Amino acid sequence: MQLLNDEAYMRLALQLAESALGQTGINPVVGCVLVKDGRIVGMGAHLKRGQGHAEVLALNMAGEEAKGSTAYVTLEPCSHYGKTPPCSDRLIEAGVERVVVAATDPNPLVAGTGIAKLRAHGLDVIEGVLGDESMKLNEAFNKFIVSRMPFVTMKTASTLDGRIASKTGDSKWITSPASRAFVHTLRHRHQGILVGVDTVIADDPQLSTRGDVPAVQPVRIIADSQLRVPLGARVLTEQDRQPTILLASAQAPAERRAALEARGIEVLTCGEGPQVDLTLAMQQLGEREIGSILLEGGGRLNGAMLERRLIDKLVLMFAPKIIGGGAAAPVNIHFDGFAKMDEAITLDRVSVEQFGPDVCITGYPSYKS
Amino acid sequence: MQLLNDEAYMRLALQLAESALGQTGINPVVGCVLVKDGRIVGMGAHLKRGQGHAEVLALNMAGEEAKGSTAYVTLEPCSHYGKTPPCSDRLIEAGVERVVVAATDPNPLVAGTGIAKLRAHGLDVIEGVLGDESMKLNEAFNKFIVSRMPFVTMKTASTLDGRIASKTGDSKWITSPASRAFVHTLRHRHQGILVGVDTVIADDPQLSTRGDVPAVQPVRIIADSQLRVPLGARVLTEQDRQPTILLASAQAPAERRAALEARGIEVLTCGEGPQVDLTLAMQQLGEREIGSILLEGGGRLNGAMLERRLIDKLVLMFAPKIIGGGAAAPVNIHFDGFAKMDEAITLDRVSVEQFGPDVCITGYPSYKS
Repeated sequence: MQLLNDEAYMRLALQLAESALGQTGINPVVGCVLVKDGRIVGMGAHLKRGQGHAEVLALNMAGEEAKGSTAYVTLEPCSHYGKTPPCSDRLIEAGVERVVVAATDPNPLVAGTGIAKLRAHGLDVIEGVLGDESMKLNEAFNKFIVSRMPFVTMKTASTLDGRIASKTGDSKWITSPASRAFVHTLRHRHQGILVGVDTVIADDPQLSTRGDVPAVQPVRIIADSQLRVPLGARVLTEQDRQPTILLASAQAPAERRAALEARGIEVLTCGEGPQVDLTLAMQQLGEREIGSILLEGGGRLNGAMLERRLIDKLVLMFAPKIIGGGAAAPVNIHFDGFAKMDEAITLDRVSVEQFGPDVCITGYPSYKS
Repeated sequence: MQLLNDEAYMRLALQLAESALGQTGINPVVGCVLVKDGRIVGMGAHLKRGQGHAEVLALNMAGEEAKGSTAYVTLEPCSHYGKTPPCSDRLIEAGVERVVVAATDPNPLVAGTGIAKLRAHGLDVIEGVLGDESMKLNEAFNKFIVSRMPFVTMKTASTLDGRIASKTGDSKWITSPASRAFVHTLRHRHQGILVGVDTVIADDPQLSTRGDVPAVQPVRIIADSQLRVPLGARVLTEQDRQPTILLASAQAPAERRAALEARGIEVLTCGEGPQVDLTLAMQQLGEREIGSILLEGGGRLNGAMLERRLIDKLVLMFAPKIIGGGAAAPVNIHFDGFAKMDEAITLDRVSVEQFGPDVCITGYPSYKS
């Protein structure tokens, strides 16, 4: 049983925040719980960019009861005018007496000034309660807000011998329905899905979120240096939900680009070619306020992104199968690689989950200098 | 807290049995606990082939107190004269009143006759208490006793992109010290270690058990069709602990074979060649009473053994690293493979463990017909 203490209320606030993952765009997820005289009097989570912050929604629920309450907030209340007024002002005005904060806001516009303002107005502020959990929830925001580069999660689904397809290219299905349901949740939680054009040519994927319930549809992004994407590909013809963005090089055929643009497809020019400059591509996507991307292969694009150190997180799913196939069967991550084992990219904070029969290994790459 | 019941005593008996894994040769591991009037009066485990069975050691410990006791035995007491007299006779003579058995003995010489004899003498026999656990402890014995073929566990240690070495062949070290300690325990629990000659040429391994404490040294077995093993390899020069057996084809150079045999190395001829007939090799090793083998690569031998359905269990260790390397970096399991994903070999009863930062996936292959 969860004991009644600061951590318990903060955990509830974190659950509220987590529930909104994927629907706040480049904004962080934030949860807030207001407690007065031993009773919860207000709850809220930031649900959509440009709309109410968690504190405001919780204060609205609490009404007069906010006076004298304790606010549990997963992220430092903002102190600046963004798309909404500063939350720290609202907490002060409402008469909140004590504020428990999980993580400070890495946003250079906040970065401790929200907490400073609360203290300056005599509120009792406690910091760092379940701070790591809050930081993890906003790992994409934390990168984007300081770098304007999208946080990229590489997801692979392979056999135990590392293959993402058989030697004939067959890949349906490697993982179980339970794993695929997890992938749809992952997609919901990222603003963009990125694949290479060879994956589009081979599999004609929808790159959509298809779960038991409706979900947010991420922008579909195709790395396609020479604009080889078939005009009949579903990522182009099924434009009713989210646009598709093509990443091309300056060497892509002009008439091909014109034909695509005439159909309303956005084509970004990412470098002089022949290959897409992936770093430039991520910068351009960041400028378009795509703050998080799920990279779903193929193996060569995975390898190229990793080589350029553009990957922030890896989610590697292994189905308990062995398919074989030698050099003809593609591997999950394909790149020229390192000469020595101690030069390998290592993963930190490794965790393991099972989805049905599949094993999912998650970690954060540590690039050698 | 473990409640006092039949399962609790059987669990103790299973722990006694498990402690002897690796030191009973082709014999099963067996534990026995004798309980009388609510007190343990005897305990034993079969410790070495040709020496006392678990029941006998426990009865010896109990002495007169065995009369009227309950015996918990992880494997059906034997009813035949092997290297020792039948244990069922000893239990009857000692006046044991009740016998709780985990698993029946798949040995065709026993197979229920031990239990039948006990019942014929009026003892109360309960079967199947923690039977699955007992069967799992003796998975190697259970195969060997009915097929005379060794139970083969394939162990690999790879990066997350499936590589067992870098493109230059560097493999030291992929996994952590915690994983390597586990591998030494695995070696202790198998009668033989099998590798391909290319692994010997590349790494010059000792193929010995090196842990914090002394351990049983398995027989070293090298698949070496053409007898290319260097005469200075440590598996040949370090013969003080366990012999090395070479598996060759009939096409191996005769003078090479003579030179090796002159040094006391046993060379088995496994088929006409050019490659070793691996099925024949396993049969010959079975005839030599090698009932369990740990296969430790390389990738091509792993693949060939799997293709021939000679693998009974897979232990696949993944270090949280990515090394890359394209076709030049060898993969954990290399074979021609299947055209369709639904033809893949699947693993049943998958379990996952972590050793330090490494993830270990264990399962049992299910070969499609």
